[in-house]
Amino acid sequence: MVSKPRSPPTAAILIIGNEILSGRTRDVNVSHFAARLGARGIAVREARIVPDDEARIVAAVNQLRAAYDLLFTTGGIGPTHDDITADCIAKAFGVTIGEDPSAVAILEAYYGDAKEFTPARRRMTRIPEGAELIDNPVSRAPGFRLGNVFVMAGVPRINQAMLEAVYDTLPSGTPRLEVAIWGAVVEGRIGDTLRAIAGRFPAVEIGSYPIYTQGRFGTTFVLRSENEAALAASRDEVFAMIRDQGAEPHIGEPENKIAAGEPGR
Amino acid sequence: MVSKPRSPPTAAILIIGNEILSGRTRDVNVSHFAARLGARGIAVREARIVPDDEARIVAAVNQLRAAYDLLFTTGGIGPTHDDITADCIAKAFGVTIGEDPSAVAILEAYYGDAKEFTPARRRMTRIPEGAELIDNPVSRAPGFRLGNVFVMAGVPRINQAMLEAVYDTLPSGTPRLEVAIWGAVVEGRIGDTLRAIAGRFPAVEIGSYPIYTQGRFGTTFVLRSENEAALAASRDEVFAMIRDQGAEPHIGEPENKIAAGEPGR
Repeated sequence: MVSKPRSPPTAAILIIGNEILSGRTRDVNVSHFAARLGARGIAVREARIVPDDEARIVAAVNQLRAAYDLLFTTGGIGPTHDDITADCIAKAFGVTIGEDPSAVAILEAYYGDAKEFTPARRRMTRIPEGAELIDNPVSRAPGFRLGNVFVMAGVPRINQAMLEAVYDTLPSGTPRLEVAIWGAVVEGRIGDTLRAIAGRFPAVEIGSYPIYTQGRFGTTFVLRSENEAALAASRDEVFAMIRDQGAEPHIGEPENKIAAGEPGR
Repeated sequence: MVSKPRSPPTAAILIIGNEILSGRTRDVNVSHFAARLGARGIAVREARIVPDDEARIVAAVNQLRAAYDLLFTTGGIGPTHDDITADCIAKAFGVTIGEDPSAVAILEAYYGDAKEFTPARRRMTRIPEGAELIDNPVSRAPGFRLGNVFVMAGVPRINQAMLEAVYDTLPSGTPRLEVAIWGAVVEGRIGDTLRAIAGRFPAVEIGSYPIYTQGRFGTTFVLRSENEAALAASRDEVFAMIRDQGAEPHIGEPENKIAAGEPGR
């Protein structure tokens, strides 16, 4: 199917918000970005979580937008005092920020009367110079793109809608083929064989993840490659490795798996 | 209770593993670290997720251990070929790595006969020079501490046990007092008042988080401070702000909350 590996476009995710670093809220956006971008052949190479702190946000934005093809930020673009992301992006790019006429028109139409379009909500129309708006079909207040940086809401439903709004404009790569295999084997017993398989298939990325399911320990093996033939051959060797342990290989993952205690440490 | 604010010890979390960046697995360790370290008065200031790639791990370790008082890494210390964290830590510190006699003794006792103590499992005894072992009461293979870097398993149950194993040895700060308040108000309407409150209480960190519960929109306000009097006074002002909207303030958070679509963007 795919014979010539190519460098995929790369991306980083920057999660902005004290609530994640205080343990109050658990991030769910990274896994969604990773899955959706991966389906487009874009490789998510790093994610960072930083607090609502201007210097920290500006530094992270400038590091990550230089290091990767695309940067997606989440959080800090709402109407309250702790929403400082738009200003930080302007500062990171060294551009001005002000009310964007298109954003004002969107929110004026949405809120109707002037009383509902409060100064707090009006802050959400402040957009860095040169940025393009990203549509927000959920609650209207837009995100924006400036250069290779996509600035999106942290609320998962809005975050996901904004990603879909720009999805078809993103660069695309060759999506990697993936196969997950699980078997009731423990990593410590198959680790040496698996290392040999990984050595024989440099074009295949092989991950090994301990699980606990149906009352016993097991391992899920995830094989990824752009090379279909190499993927199939390595899959067959993993099947044989599992059978050699007296277990049966299964394509996919068991339901109700939980993190295991034995094989990993 | 606490009058003199002091700089808390700071920490960063480094999550190592392709499975998080592929979207296959959702990290749950950051929120646990944040909550437990926060309870000890240690402020988690940053988290990063990087793939199983030596150069990327080494660079992140060296950046984060220099920037924060403590660094906790998770993942990549199991028995398979994709477990490269211990070697990366040795490289980051410029020290050698080899089998640690204490770690060998622990795993020899655990696995009993030589056949079960496979070469793959033996790899888990490779510890950088100068490191101290971290006990793993779940599956025995130890983590380790080198300087201000704590190297732990990624499997949540083992990760949490390792954190408890070192918990009492960590530096401690003054835990911040925290109060969460929710009310059926939307951020866009209270944002200006909340900004004024935040301005009057610089010693209080005030976060505002949209929620959707019991069929309507609401907001949770999280107030944190080391200054009990300032916390109480700002809490009273948030109460008044919510009542001014015709809603009732509640201490704590509603159950069954979900991320809201209106107030954030």
